[in-house]
Amino acid sequence: MHDDRAGLDVPACDRRYLAFDIGGTKIASGVVSLPPADSLATPLVEDVTEIPTLADRGGDDVRERLVEFAARRLEQCVEAGVDIAGVGIGSAGVVDSGTGVILSATDLMPGWAGQHIAAAVGEATGLPVHMVGDVGAHGLGEATYGAGREYPTMLSVGVGTGIGGAYVDHGRLITGAHGVAGHVGHMPHGLGAGMRCSCGTTCGHIEPVASGTGIADLFESRRPDDVPPATNAAEISRRAAAGEAYATEILSMSARALGECLAGMGSLIDPAVIVLSGSVVNAGEVWWKALREGFADGALPRVRTTPLLRGQLGGNAPLIGAAVGFVTAQ
Amino acid sequence: MHDDRAGLDVPACDRRYLAFDIGGTKIASGVVSLPPADSLATPLVEDVTEIPTLADRGGDDVRERLVEFAARRLEQCVEAGVDIAGVGIGSAGVVDSGTGVILSATDLMPGWAGQHIAAAVGEATGLPVHMVGDVGAHGLGEATYGAGREYPTMLSVGVGTGIGGAYVDHGRLITGAHGVAGHVGHMPHGLGAGMRCSCGTTCGHIEPVASGTGIADLFESRRPDDVPPATNAAEISRRAAAGEAYATEILSMSARALGECLAGMGSLIDPAVIVLSGSVVNAGEVWWKALREGFADGALPRVRTTPLLRGQLGGNAPLIGAAVGFVTAQ
Repeated sequence: MHDDRAGLDVPACDRRYLAFDIGGTKIASGVVSLPPADSLATPLVEDVTEIPTLADRGGDDVRERLVEFAARRLEQCVEAGVDIAGVGIGSAGVVDSGTGVILSATDLMPGWAGQHIAAAVGEATGLPVHMVGDVGAHGLGEATYGAGREYPTMLSVGVGTGIGGAYVDHGRLITGAHGVAGHVGHMPHGLGAGMRCSCGTTCGHIEPVASGTGIADLFESRRPDDVPPATNAAEISRRAAAGEAYATEILSMSARALGECLAGMGSLIDPAVIVLSGSVVNAGEVWWKALREGFADGALPRVRTTPLLRGQLGGNAPLIGAAVGFVTAQ
Repeated sequence: MHDDRAGLDVPACDRRYLAFDIGGTKIASGVVSLPPADSLATPLVEDVTEIPTLADRGGDDVRERLVEFAARRLEQCVEAGVDIAGVGIGSAGVVDSGTGVILSATDLMPGWAGQHIAAAVGEATGLPVHMVGDVGAHGLGEATYGAGREYPTMLSVGVGTGIGGAYVDHGRLITGAHGVAGHVGHMPHGLGAGMRCSCGTTCGHIEPVASGTGIADLFESRRPDDVPPATNAAEISRRAAAGEAYATEILSMSARALGECLAGMGSLIDPAVIVLSGSVVNAGEVWWKALREGFADGALPRVRTTPLLRGQLGGNAPLIGAAVGFVTAQ
């Protein structure tokens, strides 16, 4: 399967794209150069800068400031003699890439749903624009230029404050019938029963016990009186690495459950590789070992060999992926 | 999404295909005529006949008798003046459609793995042959001519002795990196914890508590002394329909868990429709109501509207789908 590369046909390697990553707290932007996907070269992400999202001001306000930001960024490129071929956007929320409209968003971004983002940025810059979801952009970046680069299909799993994901098939982001595909955090798992998921259910999803926040909540929910509280997953990881029994138990339990969910997803869609990113992948050997054990236990024999890899592009993945999304849409 | 049909481009509607459905107990065969997929016509499945698989005689023996069966079937067609354009096979086991080889099979079919089925049947008949998995064939049939016909993407879920499935995207069967994609029965669920799955794990899969066998096992595992035992899921369904409290509780619990798993799969791959087939879909209103409740509770808001439909093609689905698999591969 390694023979069949993701196969993104990027044109000249010196073409540059203006990329945006719109999150709940900040909007990042960078100038991205994409080398041919079958080279071993890594994309260049230059001139990265950001503005605060100020999401509570409402969707119209965010859109207007995004448009100003994009126009200013383009102006700077023109002044610097940098030719921009197009704009790639990765945005929080469920995105309709075909129309460039935000279909829905969480309460963290009030009024963001319904915004015609691609059209607004296109009008302000005079450039072609393509928008994908932010988690999808991350997946596209890793699949094309990161840990998934040698594999034809990749499941991307981001384990941070929440758990997000994306499925990339031969360089294309799979978005599904309602733009929702890739929501790996809402897989059922018994460990999550009774814990409230970000989607509202308490029927037992993996996110509320395996995201960074989830690990901390799980820790607190069962903490014996003689164990001191923990502020966050990073502290729990440190305490587990230092040998604390309860921290080790919770971190293992959480990672094992996530591994079992990855196994279920592996049996369902059978990706060539599963790539994990986000703050929690830095939780150390205790976490990775339990994750792999849960995966091996839950996976069908032919799926058990699927590599579980760590993402390679770090914070640049969404900007690179937004540019990739633009190129593949052309 | 209803605008975008599965789009199978079937040539002349009077072309006929010889189809085989190879299962653990019998090998069925029929002559299938495929109308254009965008018509409202249903495929004709004629002259259906079968031989016993006699799987315990080993893979070589099964292959040899399949080849004889295929040659005899073709001869009968020739004698009847029926022109056969090609052979479609749906087989038990994990199948490599590209090479026509069985990649792996369960203990129920010893020596089936490694058999070069497509080549053997092709040599015996002089016809082009294409093989897919039997569950995949079922899904292709329902997606192209059954309950999924009006939808671009479909998740097929078969709930019988075990739980199998297939994902069909615009008329194409998604097989995954190891030929495993579509194994919906190995999704995690807390209700399955400690129950042995057909894959061997006890970490908590849905199959051992939601297949027909699983419903009976779940019933037995918690049965109070004053409740009489039940032979199978059909009996449990009848007793639930008749108002027996314990039977209703078990059937609801099982269906609800399956619904929660369908919700997780819906959030992951976001199909336009989910089609359920197999004996358990006849378990009655108690089962369907709990299934829909579990789905609604576990699904993301945009996924909640995904229709859960009952398959329409019944026992003919695998033969029709085997023929569809042949046509789409040409």
